[in-house]
Amino acid sequence: MAARIILISALLALASSHALAFDPSPLQDFCVADYDSNVFVNGFACKNAKDVTADDFYFTGLDKPASTANELGANITLVNVERLPGLNTLGVAMSRIDYAPFGLNPPHSHPRSSEILHVAEGTLYAGFVTSNTENGNLLFAKKLKKGDAFVFPKGLIHFQFNIGDTEAVAFATFGSQSPGLVTTANALFGSKPPIPDYILAQAVQLSKTTVGWLQQQQWLDIAEEY
Amino acid sequence: MAARIILISALLALASSHALAFDPSPLQDFCVADYDSNVFVNGFACKNAKDVTADDFYFTGLDKPASTANELGANITLVNVERLPGLNTLGVAMSRIDYAPFGLNPPHSHPRSSEILHVAEGTLYAGFVTSNTENGNLLFAKKLKKGDAFVFPKGLIHFQFNIGDTEAVAFATFGSQSPGLVTTANALFGSKPPIPDYILAQAVQLSKTTVGWLQQQQWLDIAEEY
Amino acid sequence: MAARIILISALLALASSHALAFDPSPLQDFCVADYDSNVFVNGFACKNAKDVTADDFYFTGLDKPASTANELGANITLVNVERLPGLNTLGVAMSRIDYAPFGLNPPHSHPRSSEILHVAEGTLYAGFVTSNTENGNLLFAKKLKKGDAFVFPKGLIHFQFNIGDTEAVAFATFGSQSPGLVTTANALFGSKPPIPDYILAQAVQLSKTTVGWLQQQQWLDIAEEY
Amino acid sequence: MAARIILISALLALASSHALAFDPSPLQDFCVADYDSNVFVNGFACKNAKDVTADDFYFTGLDKPASTANELGANITLVNVERLPGLNTLGVAMSRIDYAPFGLNPPHSHPRSSEILHVAEGTLYAGFVTSNTENGNLLFAKKLKKGDAFVFPKGLIHFQFNIGDTEAVAFATFGSQSPGLVTTANALFGSKPPIPDYILAQAVQLSKTTVGWLQQQQWLDIAEEY
Amino acid sequence: MAARIILISALLALASSHALAFDPSPLQDFCVADYDSNVFVNGFACKNAKDVTADDFYFTGLDKPASTANELGANITLVNVERLPGLNTLGVAMSRIDYAPFGLNPPHSHPRSSEILHVAEGTLYAGFVTSNTENGNLLFAKKLKKGDAFVFPKGLIHFQFNIGDTEAVAFATFGSQSPGLVTTANALFGSKPPIPDYILAQAVQLSKTTVGWLQQQQWLDIAEEY
Amino acid sequence: MAARIILISALLALASSHALAFDPSPLQDFCVADYDSNVFVNGFACKNAKDVTADDFYFTGLDKPASTANELGANITLVNVERLPGLNTLGVAMSRIDYAPFGLNPPHSHPRSSEILHVAEGTLYAGFVTSNTENGNLLFAKKLKKGDAFVFPKGLIHFQFNIGDTEAVAFATFGSQSPGLVTTANALFGSKPPIPDYILAQAVQLSKTTVGWLQQQQWLDIAEEY
Repeated sequence: MAARIILISALLALASSHALAFDPSPLQDFCVADYDSNVFVNGFACKNAKDVTADDFYFTGLDKPASTANELGANITLVNVERLPGLNTLGVAMSRIDYAPFGLNPPHSHPRSSEILHVAEGTLYAGFVTSNTENGNLLFAKKLKKGDAFVFPKGLIHFQFNIGDTEAVAFATFGSQSPGLVTTANALFGSKPPIPDYILAQAVQLSKTTVGWLQQQQWLDIAEEY
Repeated sequence: MAARIILISALLALASSHALAFDPSPLQDFCVADYDSNVFVNGFACKNAKDVTADDFYFTGLDKPASTANELGANITLVNVERLPGLNTLGVAMSRIDYAPFGLNPPHSHPRSSEILHVAEGTLYAGFVTSNTENGNLLFAKKLKKGDAFVFPKGLIHFQFNIGDTEAVAFATFGSQSPGLVTTANALFGSKPPIPDYILAQAVQLSKTTVGWLQQQQWLDIAEEY
Repeated sequence: MAARIILISALLALASSHALAFDPSPLQDFCVADYDSNVFVNGFACKNAKDVTADDFYFTGLDKPASTANELGANITLVNVERLPGLNTLGVAMSRIDYAPFGLNPPHSHPRSSEILHVAEGTLYAGFVTSNTENGNLLFAKKLKKGDAFVFPKGLIHFQFNIGDTEAVAFATFGSQSPGLVTTANALFGSKPPIPDYILAQAVQLSKTTVGWLQQQQWLDIAEEY
Repeated sequence: MAARIILISALLALASSHALAFDPSPLQDFCVADYDSNVFVNGFACKNAKDVTADDFYFTGLDKPASTANELGANITLVNVERLPGLNTLGVAMSRIDYAPFGLNPPHSHPRSSEILHVAEGTLYAGFVTSNTENGNLLFAKKLKKGDAFVFPKGLIHFQFNIGDTEAVAFATFGSQSPGLVTTANALFGSKPPIPDYILAQAVQLSKTTVGWLQQQQWLDIAEEY
Repeated sequence: MAARIILISALLALASSHALAFDPSPLQDFCVADYDSNVFVNGFACKNAKDVTADDFYFTGLDKPASTANELGANITLVNVERLPGLNTLGVAMSRIDYAPFGLNPPHSHPRSSEILHVAEGTLYAGFVTSNTENGNLLFAKKLKKGDAFVFPKGLIHFQFNIGDTEAVAFATFGSQSPGLVTTANALFGSKPPIPDYILAQAVQLSKTTVGWLQQQQWLDIAEEY
Repeated sequence: MAARIILISALLALASSHALAFDPSPLQDFCVADYDSNVFVNGFACKNAKDVTADDFYFTGLDKPASTANELGANITLVNVERLPGLNTLGVAMSRIDYAPFGLNPPHSHPRSSEILHVAEGTLYAGFVTSNTENGNLLFAKKLKKGDAFVFPKGLIHFQFNIGDTEAVAFATFGSQSPGLVTTANALFGSKPPIPDYILAQAVQLSKTTVGWLQQQQWLDIAEEY
């Protein structure tokens, strides 16, 4: 069985010890993240203001497609603090998403931001599912072509699928410097260590055999392939 | 195939048109939600202060188990604004969770609050899965007995399972008056209308046949049984 | 004259130099407080993510009564960041309160959170007083029995009194990891150094002699007795 | 027995049904409060922008002393939304405080804002008491003369006393359009209905007789005398 | 003298009476703005949830250039709540900016959001000026080509100029549903009524004659031309 | 040509590397800024609580006029964290402004706070300009005399001019510990390095010659003269 791929891993919640920071109103114009500081407490240290240059606010490469040669046929280029240190404390982030024909950005949620998706090339089917309501979990989805935009509310599961036989490209707008990413199937079936199979079986109405098989698949993080 | 049940549906995102309100710092002591007002804009109207009584801040029945006679063997009693109007604007909520032996509160997330779970009776296995990290989606889980507490961070998928052969009871603490609830499997497999089967099949590594079968199951909202 | 006791001192505003942290939206899943770090700036340092374990999100002992053998006949077990490091940045906290027969959790306020009180055993009389209104400072109070809950809005003076002749137990839900505690009488009469007696006499309509006597009483912090 | 007076009642938490509003980042330049609107939901209605004039942002009279001919010898002129509708949603408020010789602004707290007090005339003794700490409730106080400023943190009990034999005047800066006011002694001894005497007696270490006497005194709201 | 044009006027602070809303954490999945409601208080009314469709979250036309046949040679297509009602309460917005050869998006600021600008076509010179610092008001600017991104911190004056002889296109990401827009020169020289000329002359070091001449120019709002 | 002066530079966005801090709800009573700490990360370090004294919350000198012997005829005395360390994390600041006869506090904006201006002596003409609206950029201005107050919304350009032939004094109230300051003309014409003259010429409808002349003037920061 082939490996599955987790997209958009660059959106990941920071896993190191110098990861804490906040989105609320800052008390200065900017605080360029300083990776050369030897003190990492409660967020990135600020670069000394006299050493800040225009390049700290600059990112290049959004015109370059990322490789979609993976199982899902999709890939992400994220503009975040690690790659654009001047974003730190400013409360915004963005990304470019490439889709091979029939490529999928699988169901996932961003715990810390809503998203506007803007289709630059190709044709996508995109949607989100509401939280539990008295009428169930409602799907709002639509076919999107070049020039269309669609909104995914904060914390809700959403996805995009390239329904065309050509490459597609979209850009995402976020209202947090660290929107976070939970890829639903990976969190359910690919956690380390795994969730006990009898719990998953009961939760998703599958046999323990099927769950066990799912848990043996690879749910790779595409970031490892960069 | 028997029906599946969505627990904790009382945590649901409000589905009516008079549902909007916010958690930030209010500008008054309280704003008791007023369901008799004929104006529902941007949140509940505030009850006239001269009509407010102590009963507006009061809830009863947390000593009563909710029926766990359902497929999941669990049920929720939520203390929210609808049942305790004085909670409106105060930024807190709580719930009681009952578990039959081997009952499951299935994997779900709260988009608007972290949670402390406190076990009052019985023995649970409880855990949460992190967002995507460079080391994958990490499971933090633990066996909990009476008197133990465990924390589930905001927006992350978590669950509890009664590993004992007796009833279990837990209480949950939330830092929002409306933490929200997304039951993961229901959002994936039970949405209305359904997510296209070829998308789900690709996302969860199952055949379209299996996905189609899953989508034909019942993913009931236990709130309908109240 | 016997010593008076300040309850719930574990809710105290942190008095050390490494105490600063914030409740707003974090930019990561969690930041487990690290007490072994030698850098304490603007809040606790985050524990290195690779060293975090399930125990960092775990607390035990909520089934154990704290001793109420003190002047007020009440005591508190607080679940806060110091005792449950994983709570850091998550915006919630809780506590267990034990009351001897006729025990009192005296009038106090939490500057940083509202509270839901849930009675697990016994019978309490609980209430809060509003801020100054055109109709005065209104008391909203009610007799609570097992299974009842009551809400105390942020920043307002509130209290609970065990009106039964048996032990009582309650659990409190907070919407901040550090709700803070100001015990009203202790702040007025027990401050160090004391508020000048002629100011207090004028403020509370008592003679300077009575105020002086009050200021000579002990207003102990029960935390010192642990 | 003479009546006691509650100062600064104009800071009161709004007691009517059209009182709800929030301090967070607004989504427009301003929203002038509209008292002629017949719809009062979740805060004041916004005045139609085409009817807004410079007078909506204007207040006059801060050079006029308010009468201090009352028991406390102090009085407040508050610049709030009711008197300056353009303040609505802007997150600031201020006030003028007049003190007769030996006049007292009695111990009180603002649940929704810190305060900077600036002495314009005379000499005051001003201070605040911290929340419960391991070293008790600490008093930070100082003699202030014309041109001095002092800070009172959010939610903490503080006071000012005119230690000179001349009139004094101060101005207060707030970081909320509705800082709120809890006058400590009035909330304890003057609530309506009263807190039971046996609870107060136990809390403040006074006899029930003394508490009962205190509760029979008048704790007037100076706003009624305007 | 030819008329001057204010770009991006669609970002304007809402000027009608039903304009108030907030960016903080909502208490529901979404609140689709309802323009047919007859009650406009404190923000848009929410559309009844049962009437919400996918089209409420959808916008089309971002692939269409807006006309740049104006004095500045630039134009804006904004995706905001008025045009995409589902954005309401979600804390994000975006826009497309078209530039003729040597077209200018003139110096302006957004009071309520930072911005990421992403160049989709052409070559721009873009920059921002810091607030007052001990080293003056620092300009951070850079030549941007297709695929480049640049960040403008919240509240700071910034601009973009098409330095190429071909059309240019950029997309902007905002972290507020209503970032707001102050076009600097228009606010200074084109206000209605005008700022007195002797004030502007002193502020900008120009003669009153020159200021008067400037104030007689047209500083049109391009929105009037739609 | 004489030098121009930037007022209120003490409000400047902090330009050093230890400048980051936030206004949201703190988790402790206070965090006195510690300038002797050798660790400056993500804001000032907190002074050790046992070393905090009343003087940390104290400022003196607001009764002393600052020299207005400069080109603008105005000057500022700011009460900020640098001068009053106890302000840190408390969300308020204030300042005194002195105006010579016909002195000008030139058009500027505060990106992080609204402002209430209170006239203590003299007569001012004060106003603000709205953001771009369908009716243009509206000026709201008024003549203010002793005892009057006026409000300037967050992020909007505003000014004050002494229209009398006597000294004037005003006090400003802010709802942030660091409101920030952008002096409009200085940011436009005095940035370092300068904005290209052909961009400014196009933006402000002046010749490149005039713009070049403006850029050669001195736009000094009055803080350099302290």
